[in-house]
Amino acid sequence: MMNSIFWLIPISSLIALSFAWIFFKSMMKESEGTDKMKEIAQHVREGAMAYLSSQYKVVGKVFLVLVVLLGVLAYMGVQNPFVPIAFLTGGFFSGLCGYLGMKTATYASARAANGASNSLNRGLKVAFRSGAVMGMVVVGFGLLDIALWFYFLNEVVFTPDHLVNGFSFLGLDFVHAGTTEHHKMVEITATMLTFGMGASTQALFARVGGGIYTKAADVGADLVGKVEAGIPEDDPRNPATIADNVGDNVGDVAGMGADLYESYCGSILATAALGAALPGLTGDIQMKAVMAPMIVAAIGILLSVVGVFMVRTKESATQKNLLNALLIGTGGSSVLILIALAVLAYFDWITWGIFGSVIAGLAAGVIIGQGTEYYTSDEYKPTQGIAGQAVQGHATTIIDGIAVGMFSTWIPVVTIVAGIIAAFGFAGGFTSFSQGVYGIGFAAVGMLSTLGITLATDAFGPIADNAGGNAEMAHLPKEVRERTDALDMLGNTTAATGKGFAIGSAALTAMALLAAYMEEIRLWLGKVPEKGQAFLEATGLTSFADANIKDFVSYYDLSLFNPMLLGGLFIGAMMAFVFCAMTMKAVGRAAGAMVEEVRRQFREIAGIMEGTATPEYAKCVAISTKGAQREMIVPSLLAIIVPILIGLILGVAGVVGLLAGGLTAGFTLAVMLNNAGGAWDNAKKYIEKGHHGGKGSEAHKAGVTGDTVGDPFKDTSGPSLNILIKLMTMVSVVMAGLTVAYSIFG
Amino acid sequence: MMNSIFWLIPISSLIALSFAWIFFKSMMKESEGTDKMKEIAQHVREGAMAYLSSQYKVVGKVFLVLVVLLGVLAYMGVQNPFVPIAFLTGGFFSGLCGYLGMKTATYASARAANGASNSLNRGLKVAFRSGAVMGMVVVGFGLLDIALWFYFLNEVVFTPDHLVNGFSFLGLDFVHAGTTEHHKMVEITATMLTFGMGASTQALFARVGGGIYTKAADVGADLVGKVEAGIPEDDPRNPATIADNVGDNVGDVAGMGADLYESYCGSILATAALGAALPGLTGDIQMKAVMAPMIVAAIGILLSVVGVFMVRTKESATQKNLLNALLIGTGGSSVLILIALAVLAYFDWITWGIFGSVIAGLAAGVIIGQGTEYYTSDEYKPTQGIAGQAVQGHATTIIDGIAVGMFSTWIPVVTIVAGIIAAFGFAGGFTSFSQGVYGIGFAAVGMLSTLGITLATDAFGPIADNAGGNAEMAHLPKEVRERTDALDMLGNTTAATGKGFAIGSAALTAMALLAAYMEEIRLWLGKVPEKGQAFLEATGLTSFADANIKDFVSYYDLSLFNPMLLGGLFIGAMMAFVFCAMTMKAVGRAAGAMVEEVRRQFREIAGIMEGTATPEYAKCVAISTKGAQREMIVPSLLAIIVPILIGLILGVAGVVGLLAGGLTAGFTLAVMLNNAGGAWDNAKKYIEKGHHGGKGSEAHKAGVTGDTVGDPFKDTSGPSLNILIKLMTMVSVVMAGLTVAYSIFG
Repeated sequence: MMNSIFWLIPISSLIALSFAWIFFKSMMKESEGTDKMKEIAQHVREGAMAYLSSQYKVVGKVFLVLVVLLGVLAYMGVQNPFVPIAFLTGGFFSGLCGYLGMKTATYASARAANGASNSLNRGLKVAFRSGAVMGMVVVGFGLLDIALWFYFLNEVVFTPDHLVNGFSFLGLDFVHAGTTEHHKMVEITATMLTFGMGASTQALFARVGGGIYTKAADVGADLVGKVEAGIPEDDPRNPATIADNVGDNVGDVAGMGADLYESYCGSILATAALGAALPGLTGDIQMKAVMAPMIVAAIGILLSVVGVFMVRTKESATQKNLLNALLIGTGGSSVLILIALAVLAYFDWITWGIFGSVIAGLAAGVIIGQGTEYYTSDEYKPTQGIAGQAVQGHATTIIDGIAVGMFSTWIPVVTIVAGIIAAFGFAGGFTSFSQGVYGIGFAAVGMLSTLGITLATDAFGPIADNAGGNAEMAHLPKEVRERTDALDMLGNTTAATGKGFAIGSAALTAMALLAAYMEEIRLWLGKVPEKGQAFLEATGLTSFADANIKDFVSYYDLSLFNPMLLGGLFIGAMMAFVFCAMTMKAVGRAAGAMVEEVRRQFREIAGIMEGTATPEYAKCVAISTKGAQREMIVPSLLAIIVPILIGLILGVAGVVGLLAGGLTAGFTLAVMLNNAGGAWDNAKKYIEKGHHGGKGSEAHKAGVTGDTVGDPFKDTSGPSLNILIKLMTMVSVVMAGLTVAYSIFG
Repeated sequence: MMNSIFWLIPISSLIALSFAWIFFKSMMKESEGTDKMKEIAQHVREGAMAYLSSQYKVVGKVFLVLVVLLGVLAYMGVQNPFVPIAFLTGGFFSGLCGYLGMKTATYASARAANGASNSLNRGLKVAFRSGAVMGMVVVGFGLLDIALWFYFLNEVVFTPDHLVNGFSFLGLDFVHAGTTEHHKMVEITATMLTFGMGASTQALFARVGGGIYTKAADVGADLVGKVEAGIPEDDPRNPATIADNVGDNVGDVAGMGADLYESYCGSILATAALGAALPGLTGDIQMKAVMAPMIVAAIGILLSVVGVFMVRTKESATQKNLLNALLIGTGGSSVLILIALAVLAYFDWITWGIFGSVIAGLAAGVIIGQGTEYYTSDEYKPTQGIAGQAVQGHATTIIDGIAVGMFSTWIPVVTIVAGIIAAFGFAGGFTSFSQGVYGIGFAAVGMLSTLGITLATDAFGPIADNAGGNAEMAHLPKEVRERTDALDMLGNTTAATGKGFAIGSAALTAMALLAAYMEEIRLWLGKVPEKGQAFLEATGLTSFADANIKDFVSYYDLSLFNPMLLGGLFIGAMMAFVFCAMTMKAVGRAAGAMVEEVRRQFREIAGIMEGTATPEYAKCVAISTKGAQREMIVPSLLAIIVPILIGLILGVAGVVGLLAGGLTAGFTLAVMLNNAGGAWDNAKKYIEKGHHGGKGSEAHKAGVTGDTVGDPFKDTSGPSLNILIKLMTMVSVVMAGLTVAYSIFG
């Protein structure tokens, strides 16, 4: 029977969704401004929705194929029969979060612009509350999905009767007869874990597709509009300008929403699975270990709502006041969650060691965020140095930016290594491996527990950006644009920590998932008789439940001296590079098509430059949509197919190597791409502030080159890598049965 | 007592050195051409020697510090007392090879230009024979050093009397009393292995310093000369032009010589060490296993000499004839070495399985070379695609080049994974791990056995390049320059396979060294009583010799689930990125100083542009020299310090992770940098052939930007990475005693 505290989980998620609704309604009450503003917002909204609906069609087809495949595997007996459905719900909710977040953002941009025409503070309020809608939707649906599955599996499927007699349906064994109480929780959490694969698949498509879309439109708009035609950013005469604004929504909002939904659920589910598998736990104690990450998430939701309301400013607030207000919101939530965790530790829901693990995780997130800030903000030397190199020319700007990006990897890597070891150690990992990785998982859960508010500070940047676009196109007074730009910059500053949390939690979650993968192997060894028998004979054990990580390490030779594992490690590192290459190439091709279309319109439609004829915005939107759709398929499928192939060829050791290689090289490469891109962007802005000759100088041209190179780095390839890493892990987890049963090299 | 076949080893090396001398003398007999040509050659020679002597001073100081450190460690009992001396000889011979190769090259350039003014064939002959000098010097001194140490240790140090009674000197235990015959060979090969660290250290300084020098001069000469002043490449009015030509010698010749000396010795020594450690071998059989890689190398030397003489052409040869002639030389040597190995297998010196491993290694080298060719030659789509993107501008050229480089990693990575698994499997690795890694080592030895001739085809490119510079500056007729350019291109084509072998062997050697590291740990566990005792107790063994790899894996937890190892893996990946960042930054700074100097001379020295005043070449040479010297120290020291620190903090598991992370991420990154750089270079040349508007077009400017970005990629950071990987491994091997005795986390 469920503990009554369980109900805190669905209730919190419903509270989050209610507040999302309230924030949405309150935003919608604001005026959308002039007719021109409404018209522009309508264009962007339609373009964004058109893109999303066509993206979901493509993704829907991919999901259909995968569900059939998973179903076939279930009939072959090498797949949990719940997986096809769990996979679907994960994908569905992830997509829904992206959709709702984006819908809100597209309604908010004109309203934020209108708010900013009154005061900075009004603009902030609209943009931040709209961002909070997305934050609440993500955590709300994430936890709701988890709560529903947990209830369903616990109360409907794994009933005491089913545990004794088994439960079959349509010829599939859902519960094996004689399942023990301990094993029940392992099965439940393992099943739930697999809905993460649906979320990751959806997220990867959203990030890659959105990333390609936004950068194709951006590069296309900039190259022809700014460079060739010499008109400013967001000028309504530029045919690609609507597509550019749509891109901010589909990439930075919808893509990010799906991404963080995946991170959020992944960290909770992985930790729950590791909790269930803690050796020797049964009954209430095991239930507590499983529910603890969900309870922390539930408390985090409530505290995030509190945090949103802590963001209060006076009408006459300066930018510094606003920044402080935001920091009080995010920082306040984090402090509160620590207090809540201490209470949980006091009441024995978690150990004090786990509490230490979460602090290690939070500290790592803050340090990574600050490091990112240092290497990408124009207030510090690295970015200023890139601007200085721009004087020498294009090539030196590029070399210096790449060097800054590569060098900047040291802070996140050293921090995450220290964080992993500390989280592992605090939780008691040096005496019990299982306790240690449970702690690592908890560090990720702790970092993401206040996602409701940190995501609000992340999402409000693109909304402010779009508000600026709206203001520009609607010819609002110059100070409105200045205010939205100020809000955009404000968002970048507060988002630094949020991004640190996102990156840090991704690495921690991936590490936890790697451990969860071994639990899945344990499960499948129990279900594939001939393989399981071989394992028991080799290890001299009598039951799989008795096996600890060392038994698996020894049986599958998961050491670095197994050439299969080393091979997987090489291929994992390569996957990160090849995946980046494909997404960059995709941006190049899609941008090329956009450039041609914009040039064609300037050439063929008379009166565009004079402002007497309206460009065909929709055509540019359609081109970006089509390009993104076409180009997102191959790299995303690669992330699904390669782990399956490696599992079938190189076996369990190969998969473990693949995941570790993808994690370490991919993490480092992602940091490099994100930071190089961010530094180039800000170096260009630094020049535009009047340094080294300012706008229009040769240095500025070199700065623009850097920024353009950085666009796919930081907005397409870099952010996609985090999902790639986790999706490869999720696929491996879900396909563990196939690997155990059919791999060639064990 | 030494087997009489041992003498084949020193004799072969002396034969190689004799031929080097003969080839050198025959080259010196050629005329150096006009007075102007002699004068220019003299300038370049002096600059190169000045650089090398000042580099050796810096490196000498570093070596002094390291020797003292190693000596102190020896007195502390955690270091083999031979290591300081072995370290010195490795460094000395590596430097000597670079010096002699470069001396030859600087004497050859004017002679090759003069030869080319007669015919293409004459030019080829001079350049190729000069390249062969370097090839023979590297393999000759490499094998000589190995033979001398092997003889000395076997006959003077580990005498039957010393084995029984021990041998001490200056209070240091060189041989412990009661050493067994089996253990003797293990000690000998382990000691010899450590001279690889000296070679690697020297090689890293040579590659990094030379790489910085050559690119600082190149970028400086190009940016001011070509772009700002609009004068052609190698124009004598450009003050940096001599420095540029010096750079080709110190980077591409001296750097490469030291690099390949290190690879060559490293592969032989690692394989010998693994042969000695093969379980259960004693007496003649063990001796055979140790000497087999040396014998293969010795035979390879003789066959390389044969190969050099197989390169014959008619006086009226076309470029295609010449290419075929070179391919007959390199291909012929490879076929002959396979036949020789088959003979060795027939006479039981090696198993047929090892023979299979070598074929796997050779095949991997050829495939990697061909893959490199495909992704970097302007005859294929990838490079042409970059040229096509140049029409769109600088940024798209960069994005596409990076994407091509990243994508191209798939061939080398998949090939090396297949090669490692095949070499491991053929040698019987799936039943005996030790046999398997011995096979992997042999695959590397086989690939590098014909280095004498493959290096000749590598080194003759830069010589032809310099001949072209000489021709240009001495105002020789246009067709001479065309011929030297043709030779340069010829060199690029034949060098592709050579580069594939170099990269492939580096990965294989690193893998073999990783296994050798564990042998070193085994040795030190036997010498650090309290640690050794703990190991024996934990594993239940009675002797270290009985321990197999699984015992170490289990004791040190060398699985991917040890957070220390995973932490090491992260840091290894990071090291590759940070090291690249530092070398790129260094090029940027040194190039910046050069740009300023060239601008100053154009400004202050009247009559340079009219050709009436001579620029101050020496000042530019001095600037590059100083820049390279200053900048090479920090990144190189990092490669030495980090493995020591990781060993002391994260222990053996951390080191294993570091090395594997550095190997996998570093290998992939190196391929990416090399191929992106190569592709940009050729894309620019493709445009210069008249495509997309040809020289002077906007596309060409973007192409030049790509080429300039690619310069530090392919000539500084990329090639240095291979050495970084191996140096980190060598340092770990040499410092194994320190790690065993003092590491914090075991």
